Amino acid sequence: MLPELMITVLSGGTGGAKFVQGLSRVVPAEDITVIVNTGDDLEWWGLHVSPDLDSISYALAGQLSRERGWGVEGDSFHCAEAAARLGLPTWFRLGDRDLALHLARTQLLGSGRSLGEATAEIVARFGVRSSVLPMTNQRVETRVSTAAGELNFQEYFVREHYAPTPLGVCFAGAEQASPAPGVLEALAAAQAILIAPSNPITSIGPILAIPGIRHALRAAPAPIAAVSPMVGGAAVSGPAAALMRAAGFAPSYSGVASAYSDFLDVLIADYRDAKWHDQNAALGFSTGVRVHFCDTIMTSEPSKDELARAALSSLGGALDKFCSREAVSP
Amino acid sequence: MLPELMITVLSGGTGGAKFVQGLSRVVPAEDITVIVNTGDDLEWWGLHVSPDLDSISYALAGQLSRERGWGVEGDSFHCAEAAARLGLPTWFRLGDRDLALHLARTQLLGSGRSLGEATAEIVARFGVRSSVLPMTNQRVETRVSTAAGELNFQEYFVREHYAPTPLGVCFAGAEQASPAPGVLEALAAAQAILIAPSNPITSIGPILAIPGIRHALRAAPAPIAAVSPMVGGAAVSGPAAALMRAAGFAPSYSGVASAYSDFLDVLIADYRDAKWHDQNAALGFSTGVRVHFCDTIMTSEPSKDELARAALSSLGGALDKFCSREAVSP
Repeated sequence: MLPELMITVLSGGTGGAKFVQGLSRVVPAEDITVIVNTGDDLEWWGLHVSPDLDSISYALAGQLSRERGWGVEGDSFHCAEAAARLGLPTWFRLGDRDLALHLARTQLLGSGRSLGEATAEIVARFGVRSSVLPMTNQRVETRVSTAAGELNFQEYFVREHYAPTPLGVCFAGAEQASPAPGVLEALAAAQAILIAPSNPITSIGPILAIPGIRHALRAAPAPIAAVSPMVGGAAVSGPAAALMRAAGFAPSYSGVASAYSDFLDVLIADYRDAKWHDQNAALGFSTGVRVHFCDTIMTSEPSKDELARAALSSLGGALDKFCSREAVSP
Repeated sequence: MLPELMITVLSGGTGGAKFVQGLSRVVPAEDITVIVNTGDDLEWWGLHVSPDLDSISYALAGQLSRERGWGVEGDSFHCAEAAARLGLPTWFRLGDRDLALHLARTQLLGSGRSLGEATAEIVARFGVRSSVLPMTNQRVETRVSTAAGELNFQEYFVREHYAPTPLGVCFAGAEQASPAPGVLEALAAAQAILIAPSNPITSIGPILAIPGIRHALRAAPAPIAAVSPMVGGAAVSGPAAALMRAAGFAPSYSGVASAYSDFLDVLIADYRDAKWHDQNAALGFSTGVRVHFCDTIMTSEPSKDELARAALSSLGGALDKFCSREAVSP
């Protein structure tokens, strides 16, 4: 039996993970396919770490740390403390429970499984009913060029706390990469496509840089809505504003709309920004994108669900039934 | 400056680790070189685990769990619990702090370091002043043939709790292996050689199976004493008795003496077994080995130190100065 509905989400980690968590309570989890950025992946202590795949998997499994926004709720860091004493680098932190996931993934990859197959096995073990797909099975590395030199994304983001001003971003390996099995199919078959409130440049950007994915979005029969991660000219969290500027986009919802203008139908922007709308329009904001204003800041579990409903509601049609609070029991 | 004294110890894990701990408090730690069994090594969760090297390193670093006799004192097992949920095997238990050592070793080996170099770097990080050498840098695997089939040593010992009766033991790869750098030198230069109270078959046996080591023991100018791990016809811990029988030796101190008879000068046996001595002599126990009886059971920190003193005292000569309790402050 085909799912009643197929919703395909493009996502990075933190904000995307919260959004997907809400969405999975508003529509049946098995109807959701998440295509996840892997440009932030890194080899750490010899293990293959996929921060965004991990955050999405933990979010859907109900294990994501609410306090940190990454890793496992209530995790300990005993291994990392011992690793520091042994001289291993520890600027990228891995919790003890979290380590099991990286050990399992590294073993699966070592035994010849693709990243997509390893991810499917891990989320199945977690009891997750949604599909979680890496954007590609190949290695793509997001690199940020800064005044302090070119950095791997995690070096820029975690090690340097995104202090150096970014000058540009590239996705090493993207041109030679191809979408992971299931990615193009999930875009073509979707009844709705949602772009999570993730950094358009370094979270969604790598996905769009994989040859074939941007074209598939343009060609997709489903309506496409994106949730802006920008509120009032700044990112809800992280370095999105500086990265937007470096990529030539305004650090605002209108910049997000511009970044996606070739495939986007609806932009979900924060209601706090509605006051700028007339001005934006006057300044030439005419991407043909419909803007829907609502509260995009997910400070609580109900607010995650509300944002998912707002995104679905903005696309209308067959999705309307999921937009009232009583539609699906959590 | 050369060390005043050079004491070389051959050791396995548990009992050997306790013995070496005492010894390092009785003589200056920097005068001790420990040659360690690596026949129990295994790849676990993709990491190179060297149980006996680990136990010796933790013992000398003051980190060894007293309760368990392996791993790190007070360690947690959060990663292992999460690994079980992800379907990783967990019959071999790795604590969270312990994991850091295996991650560090695996990374060092992956970067081209030998096992000996990796071990030296790890013990240096721990602040250990003794030298810890693997018996060889090559892979040697202790395999136990049992009625239930041939098992890797850890499968036999940990997974099967040494329930299957052992029929024989082999050391796969030993014939092609060579002693790690420093091993033959430490035997030739030693002023005393001690065989720790480790299983003669599966802990000391693999070391003796590396071509050149047994010959170096026979040729060593230093006197050689072994501490028997057998008391009253059984091992103090573990499956030594059954393994001794399988290898054709009596499961007693006299069997231990026989196993080492071609190079041993003194056997330190437990005083509880002194009553058998005349009978053993009557039964043909005439290996030319002098037997020294004392309390060999290390139930406390002082008893570890006492056993080390007894072993040194049995060899006499230059070692006498370390045999009184006041010789070296802990």
